[in-house]
Amino acid sequence: MDFEKGNGLVPAIAQDYRSGRVLMVAYMNNDAWERTLQTGEAHYWSRSRGETWHKGATSGNIQIVKEIFADCDFDTILLKVEQVGGAACHLGYESCFHNRVESNGDITIIGERIFDPAKVYGK
Amino acid sequence: MDFEKGNGLVPAIAQDYRSGRVLMVAYMNNDAWERTLQTGEAHYWSRSRGETWHKGATSGNIQIVKEIFADCDFDTILLKVEQVGGAACHLGYESCFHNRVESNGDITIIGERIFDPAKVYGK
Repeated sequence: MDFEKGNGLVPAIAQDYRSGRVLMVAYMNNDAWERTLQTGEAHYWSRSRGETWHKGATSGNIQIVKEIFADCDFDTILLKVEQVGGAACHLGYESCFHNRVESNGDITIIGERIFDPAKVYGK
Repeated sequence: MDFEKGNGLVPAIAQDYRSGRVLMVAYMNNDAWERTLQTGEAHYWSRSRGETWHKGATSGNIQIVKEIFADCDFDTILLKVEQVGGAACHLGYESCFHNRVESNGDITIIGERIFDPAKVYGK
Protein backbone atom coordinates (compact mmCIF):
# COMPACT_ATOMS: atom_id res chain seq x y z
CA MET A 1 0.00 0.00 0.00
CA ASP A 2 1.08 3.57 -0.69
CA PHE A 3 0.93 5.33 2.67
CA GLU A 4 3.07 8.29 1.62
CA LYS A 5 0.48 10.30 -0.30
CA GLY A 6 -1.67 10.67 2.82
CA ASN A 7 1.13 11.35 5.30
CA GLY A 8 1.24 7.75 6.47
CA LEU A 9 -2.50 7.10 6.35
CA VAL A 10 -4.90 5.66 3.80
CA PRO A 11 -8.69 5.67 4.03
CA ALA A 12 -10.32 2.28 4.52
CA ILE A 13 -13.97 1.59 3.75
CA ALA A 14 -15.80 -1.12 5.64
CA GLN A 15 -18.64 -2.59 3.59
CA ASP A 16 -21.07 -5.25 4.79
CA TYR A 17 -20.11 -8.37 2.82
CA ARG A 18 -23.72 -9.52 2.51
CA SER A 19 -25.84 -6.40 2.02
CA GLY A 20 -23.17 -4.28 0.33
CA ARG A 21 -24.04 -1.43 2.67
CA VAL A 22 -21.18 0.97 3.28
CA LEU A 23 -20.73 0.94 7.06
CA MET A 24 -17.94 3.38 7.81
CA VAL A 25 -14.69 4.93 6.68
CA ALA A 26 -11.64 5.08 8.93
CA TYR A 27 -7.90 5.36 8.40
CA MET A 28 -5.08 2.83 8.47
CA ASN A 29 -1.38 3.31 8.91
CA ASN A 30 1.01 0.50 8.06
CA ASP A 31 0.69 -1.01 11.54
CA ALA A 32 -3.12 -1.15 11.39
CA TRP A 33 -2.89 -2.62 7.87
CA GLU A 34 -0.48 -5.35 8.97
CA ARG A 35 -2.60 -6.21 12.02
CA THR A 36 -5.71 -6.40 9.86
CA LEU A 37 -4.00 -8.81 7.46
CA GLN A 38 -2.58 -10.92 10.30
CA THR A 39 -5.65 -11.16 12.52
CA GLY A 40 -8.49 -11.06 9.99
CA GLU A 41 -10.19 -8.37 12.11
CA ALA A 42 -10.29 -4.70 11.17
CA HIS A 43 -7.74 -2.43 12.83
CA TYR A 44 -7.57 1.30 12.16
CA TRP A 45 -5.53 4.33 13.18
CA SER A 46 -7.50 6.70 15.36
CA ARG A 47 -6.66 10.24 14.25
CA SER A 48 -8.32 11.71 17.36
CA ARG A 49 -6.70 9.37 19.89
CA GLY A 50 -3.41 8.95 18.02
CA GLU A 51 -3.28 5.17 18.42
CA THR A 52 -3.96 1.93 16.61
CA TRP A 53 -7.51 0.87 17.25
CA HIS A 54 -8.92 -2.63 17.18
CA LYS A 55 -12.46 -1.87 15.99
CA GLY A 56 -14.92 -3.33 18.49
CA ALA A 57 -12.44 -3.67 21.35
CA THR A 58 -14.71 -1.58 23.59
CA SER A 59 -18.15 -2.21 22.10
CA GLY A 60 -17.62 -5.86 21.13
CA ASN A 61 -18.71 -4.91 17.61
CA ILE A 62 -15.63 -6.22 15.82
CA GLN A 63 -15.40 -6.52 12.05
CA ILE A 64 -14.46 -9.93 10.68
CA VAL A 65 -12.70 -9.40 7.38
CA LYS A 66 -14.06 -11.52 4.52
CA GLU A 67 -12.27 -9.91 1.57
CA ILE A 68 -9.83 -7.06 1.06
CA PHE A 69 -9.48 -4.89 -2.04
CA ALA A 70 -7.02 -2.13 -2.88
CA ASP A 71 -7.80 0.54 -5.44
CA CYS A 72 -5.93 1.23 -8.67
CA ASP A 73 -3.49 3.61 -6.96
CA PHE A 74 -3.05 1.40 -3.88
CA ASP A 75 -3.93 4.35 -1.67
CA THR A 76 -7.41 3.30 -0.54
CA ILE A 77 -8.60 0.05 1.05
CA LEU A 78 -11.99 -1.65 0.82
CA LEU A 79 -12.78 -4.26 3.46
CA LYS A 80 -15.76 -6.55 3.03
CA VAL A 81 -16.67 -7.41 6.59
CA GLU A 82 -19.08 -9.24 8.81
CA GLN A 83 -20.11 -6.56 11.31
CA VAL A 84 -20.56 -8.30 14.66
CA GLY A 85 -23.47 -6.79 16.60
CA GLY A 86 -25.00 -5.35 13.45
CA ALA A 87 -23.85 -1.77 14.06
CA ALA A 88 -20.62 -0.12 12.97
CA CYS A 89 -21.31 3.46 14.08
CA HIS A 90 -20.32 4.65 17.53
CA LEU A 91 -23.70 6.41 17.66
CA GLY A 92 -25.42 3.00 17.53
CA TYR A 93 -26.51 3.00 13.89
CA GLU A 94 -25.75 0.16 11.48
CA SER A 95 -23.88 2.57 9.23
CA CYS A 96 -22.09 5.83 9.91
CA PHE A 97 -23.67 7.08 6.69
CA HIS A 98 -27.10 7.64 8.20
CA ASN A 99 -27.36 11.34 7.27
CA ARG A 100 -29.06 11.73 3.91
CA VAL A 101 -28.24 15.10 2.38
CA GLU A 102 -30.79 16.73 0.12
CA SER A 103 -29.67 18.95 -2.74
CA ASN A 104 -30.64 22.03 -0.72
CA GLY A 105 -28.39 20.84 2.13
CA ASP A 106 -31.16 19.54 4.41
CA ILE A 107 -30.28 16.44 6.46
CA THR A 108 -32.59 13.49 7.11
CA ILE A 109 -31.50 10.73 9.47
CA ILE A 110 -32.04 7.30 7.89
CA GLY A 111 -32.07 4.11 9.94
CA GLU A 112 -32.61 3.28 13.57
CA ARG A 113 -30.25 2.88 16.46
CA ILE A 114 -29.22 -0.75 16.97
CA PHE A 115 -27.65 0.00 20.35
CA ASP A 116 -27.63 2.80 22.90
CA PRO A 117 -24.14 4.33 22.89
CA ALA A 118 -24.54 5.51 26.49
CA LYS A 119 -24.85 1.89 27.62
CA VAL A 120 -22.06 0.54 25.40
CA TYR A 121 -19.46 3.23 25.98
CA GLY A 122 -20.62 4.53 29.35
CA LYS A 123 -20.76 8.08 28.04
CA MET B 1 -19.51 19.27 5.89
CA ASP B 2 -16.41 19.49 8.06
CA PHE B 3 -13.55 20.18 5.66
CA GLU B 4 -11.12 21.37 8.35
CA LYS B 5 -10.03 17.97 9.72
CA GLY B 6 -8.61 16.95 6.34
CA ASN B 7 -6.99 20.28 5.45
CA GLY B 8 -9.89 21.35 3.27
CA LEU B 9 -10.66 17.93 1.79
CA VAL B 10 -12.99 15.08 2.66
CA PRO B 11 -13.00 11.63 1.06
CA ALA B 12 -16.04 10.83 -1.06
CA ILE B 13 -17.08 7.30 -1.96
CA ALA B 14 -18.96 6.64 -5.18
CA GLN B 15 -21.17 3.56 -4.92
CA ASP B 16 -23.27 2.12 -7.74
CA TYR B 17 -26.86 2.87 -6.71
CA ARG B 18 -28.17 -0.40 -8.13
CA SER B 19 -25.50 -3.05 -7.45
CA GLY B 20 -24.08 -1.47 -4.29
CA ARG B 21 -20.60 -1.96 -5.71
CA VAL B 22 -18.04 0.54 -4.41
CA LEU B 23 -16.69 2.20 -7.54
CA MET B 24 -14.05 4.66 -6.34
CA VAL B 25 -12.92 7.05 -3.67
CA ALA B 26 -11.85 10.59 -4.45
CA TYR B 27 -11.69 13.87 -2.55
CA MET B 28 -13.93 16.92 -2.41
CA ASN B 29 -13.22 20.44 -1.28
CA ASN B 30 -16.06 22.82 -0.60
CA ASP B 31 -16.21 23.92 -4.24
CA ALA B 32 -16.50 20.34 -5.53
CA TRP B 33 -19.14 19.63 -2.88
CA GLU B 34 -21.22 22.67 -3.87
CA ARG B 35 -20.95 21.85 -7.56
CA THR B 36 -22.03 18.27 -6.90
CA LEU B 37 -25.09 19.46 -4.98
CA GLN B 38 -25.96 22.05 -7.62
CA THR B 39 -25.46 19.97 -10.76
CA GLY B 40 -26.38 16.47 -9.56
CA GLU B 41 -23.17 15.17 -11.14
CA ALA B 42 -20.10 14.17 -9.15
CA HIS B 43 -17.31 16.73 -8.90
CA TYR B 44 -14.08 16.07 -7.03
CA TRP B 45 -10.84 17.82 -6.18
CA SER B 46 -7.87 16.33 -7.99
CA ARG B 47 -4.96 16.18 -5.55
CA SER B 48 -2.51 15.44 -8.38
CA ARG B 49 -3.72 18.16 -10.76
CA GLY B 50 -4.70 20.66 -8.07
CA GLU B 51 -8.06 21.51 -9.62
CA THR B 52 -11.75 20.81 -9.37
CA TRP B 53 -12.60 17.88 -11.58
CA HIS B 54 -15.94 17.10 -13.20
CA LYS B 55 -15.77 13.31 -13.20
CA GLY B 56 -16.27 12.06 -16.74
CA ALA B 57 -15.50 15.37 -18.44
CA THR B 58 -12.81 13.66 -20.54
CA SER B 59 -14.05 10.08 -20.73
CA GLY B 60 -17.76 10.84 -20.87
CA ASN B 61 -18.21 8.51 -17.92
CA ILE B 62 -19.98 10.99 -15.66
CA GLN B 63 -21.62 10.00 -12.39
CA ILE B 64 -25.27 10.97 -11.99
CA VAL B 65 -25.92 11.43 -8.29
CA LYS B 66 -28.97 9.56 -7.01
CA GLU B 67 -28.52 9.99 -3.24
CA ILE B 68 -25.98 11.64 -0.96
CA PHE B 69 -25.08 10.58 2.56
CA ALA B 70 -22.75 12.15 5.12
CA ASP B 71 -21.24 10.13 7.93
CA CYS B 72 -21.72 10.71 11.65
CA ASP B 73 -18.81 13.17 11.85
CA PHE B 74 -19.71 14.96 8.59
CA ASP B 75 -16.19 14.40 7.33
CA THR B 76 -16.86 11.69 4.73
CA ILE B 77 -19.34 11.63 1.84
CA LEU B 78 -21.10 8.68 0.24
CA LEU B 79 -22.58 9.23 -3.22
CA LYS B 80 -24.97 6.69 -4.68
CA VAL B 81 -24.49 7.16 -8.41
CA GLU B 82 -25.44 5.95 -11.82
CA GLN B 83 -22.08 5.37 -13.48
CA VAL B 84 -22.48 6.35 -17.12
CA GLY B 85 -20.46 4.04 -19.39
CA GLY B 86 -20.31 1.36 -16.71
CA ALA B 87 -16.73 2.04 -15.66
CA ALA B 88 -15.49 4.43 -12.99
CA CYS B 89 -11.79 3.58 -13.01
CA HIS B 90 -9.38 5.46 -15.25
CA LEU B 91 -7.81 2.07 -16.03
CA GLY B 92 -11.06 0.97 -17.66
CA TYR B 93 -12.44 -1.24 -14.91
CA GLU B 94 -15.94 -0.89 -13.48
CA SER B 95 -14.46 -0.27 -10.03
CA CYS B 96 -11.12 1.09 -8.90
CA PHE B 97 -11.18 -1.65 -6.26
CA HIS B 98 -10.21 -4.44 -8.64
CA ASN B 99 -7.12 -5.56 -6.71
CA ARG B 100 -8.05 -8.32 -4.28
CA VAL B 101 -5.45 -8.60 -1.53
CA GLU B 102 -4.83 -11.99 0.05
CA SER B 103 -3.78 -12.23 3.69
CA ASN B 104 -0.21 -12.96 2.58
CA GLY B 105 -0.18 -9.75 0.53
CA ASP B 106 -0.66 -11.37 -2.88
CA ILE B 107 -2.74 -9.39 -5.38
CA THR B 108 -5.33 -10.85 -7.77
CA ILE B 109 -7.00 -8.61 -10.34
CA ILE B 110 -10.78 -9.08 -10.30
CA GLY B 111 -13.00 -7.93 -13.15
CA GLU B 112 -12.48 -7.08 -16.77
CA ARG B 113 -11.74 -3.85 -18.54
CA ILE B 114 -14.90 -2.15 -19.82
CA PHE B 115 -12.91 0.30 -21.93
CA ASP B 116 -9.37 0.73 -23.19
CA PRO B 117 -7.84 3.73 -21.41
CA ALA B 118 -5.43 4.34 -24.30
CA LYS B 119 -8.40 4.99 -26.60
CA VAL B 120 -10.38 7.07 -24.10
CA TYR B 121 -7.61 9.26 -22.76
CA GLY B 122 -5.19 9.06 -25.68
CA LYS B 123 -2.38 7.93 -23.40
